[in-house]
Amino acid sequence: MGRMTTRQPVLRLRAGRSARRPDTLAVEEPLAVRVGGETVTLTMRTPGQDFDLIAGWLVSEGVVAAPADIVTMRMCTDEDNTVDVTLAPDAVPPRPRAFVTTSACGVCGSDSVEEVRTAMRWRVLDDETRLDVGILAALPDLLRSQQKVFDRTGGLHAAGLFTAGGDCVVVREDVGRHNAVDKVVGAACRSGRLPLRGHVLQVSGRASFELVHKAAAAGVPAIAAVSAPSSLAVDLAEECGLTLLGFVRGGGMNVYTHQERVRLGPFPRQRNVT
Amino acid sequence: MGRMTTRQPVLRLRAGRSARRPDTLAVEEPLAVRVGGETVTLTMRTPGQDFDLIAGWLVSEGVVAAPADIVTMRMCTDEDNTVDVTLAPDAVPPRPRAFVTTSACGVCGSDSVEEVRTAMRWRVLDDETRLDVGILAALPDLLRSQQKVFDRTGGLHAAGLFTAGGDCVVVREDVGRHNAVDKVVGAACRSGRLPLRGHVLQVSGRASFELVHKAAAAGVPAIAAVSAPSSLAVDLAEECGLTLLGFVRGGGMNVYTHQERVRLGPFPRQRNVT
Repeated sequence: MGRMTTRQPVLRLRAGRSARRPDTLAVEEPLAVRVGGETVTLTMRTPGQDFDLIAGWLVSEGVVAAPADIVTMRMCTDEDNTVDVTLAPDAVPPRPRAFVTTSACGVCGSDSVEEVRTAMRWRVLDDETRLDVGILAALPDLLRSQQKVFDRTGGLHAAGLFTAGGDCVVVREDVGRHNAVDKVVGAACRSGRLPLRGHVLQVSGRASFELVHKAAAAGVPAIAAVSAPSSLAVDLAEECGLTLLGFVRGGGMNVYTHQERVRLGPFPRQRNVT
Repeated sequence: MGRMTTRQPVLRLRAGRSARRPDTLAVEEPLAVRVGGETVTLTMRTPGQDFDLIAGWLVSEGVVAAPADIVTMRMCTDEDNTVDVTLAPDAVPPRPRAFVTTSACGVCGSDSVEEVRTAMRWRVLDDETRLDVGILAALPDLLRSQQKVFDRTGGLHAAGLFTAGGDCVVVREDVGRHNAVDKVVGAACRSGRLPLRGHVLQVSGRASFELVHKAAAAGVPAIAAVSAPSSLAVDLAEECGLTLLGFVRGGGMNVYTHQERVRLGPFPRQRNVT
């Protein structure tokens, strides 16, 4: 596994002064994934927890759902940044993805939502989980407190998996926010936790279609973002049965879909509400 | 062209109160691009300036560099979110991209940098441009003042092209930061401005390998990010001759590469320096 950070000299200009000094950067490096000898994806990622990243990506692709679905993952010694994956005999390998070929009727948001929904291994039929507003409001700070690499670089996205009771299960960081989510889902998959009933996925930035897709593929009933969701993220969350929360900050939040899981009282202490 | 925003009811929880009210969301929709009848890419983007987006993406792919390289772009009337592109006869169409196939020697950051550098149409041989610290420090606020959709949604990335003198040429917004840059580069390409000597590209977030690649493909001598660059972004900028600035905020900034273009004095007035 490679390093997550590197040091490099930088010219720092502040308050009328300039100084040349070392700066810590988040590492970005390519990673190639081979299944059965064939390269199925190449992604730019921050090294570290590569096996989690790959397992999580395979969950999103609908290829794996349990530890036994992956027989081995092996970091190649003869090639840099390349991992060989051996799947269980009954697993269907992922298609190398140029892009989703368009269906005869064209391409639109509804098609995209429908395609993802019908490819799901499980629906998010988690009617039991209840999420307290006070616990939800605390998740961004809990996530932030675990962002060890962000502290040094200011340059990484993060995703964290928490129980409905607010206990932290796993936190991962990456230059790509989709990678951070893949690493979290992959870690959960490899420890046999899927589908992630009774959990909530907190992400450090915005909620896109892709992130909601990954959450739904992991069977988590709720995804919470510090910033805004997109229209298609909301559409997909609604359709898949996910509770989608946005602008979870300063003690407040917006509930975009499936608010039946959110328990309103008691409200958290007011902090920096604008 | 579609809408950039949409309205949707949301349960808003703030300061001990809950209210159901309409919220404005940034629209995310797929866009398929066909060249010569073949689909070459499918991207999730915010509708609007789709022709700029496509032109900019084609610049990154090394396919076009001048207005005459694209004969026509036509939004299909029989299919949603699909654009047909006709290239000039001497233009080489883009390969449908699953991923870059790995070279025999494996895959690493140096390979990625080398691959991008050798595919460039022009080196960033802009020895004349000088960038004043005071002007650079003002660009994030200038960009922010043009982010019309962000104001309503809080959910969009932005990119802006400025002259070295600080004049705004074009600003574009999108749910994807790579799309925002593609839209800016595409708008500049379509008005015959490439290579973008004497300009600086300001982006609202972080600087990744991909964004530096797009800047280099457009021939712009400097890219400035409000947040952190990645290690590979720095490597590529150094190699391609680009000035890369990060953490451009609060009157300060870090200069990571090619500082010879940055004119140090006079420094800007100190603002919120931490």
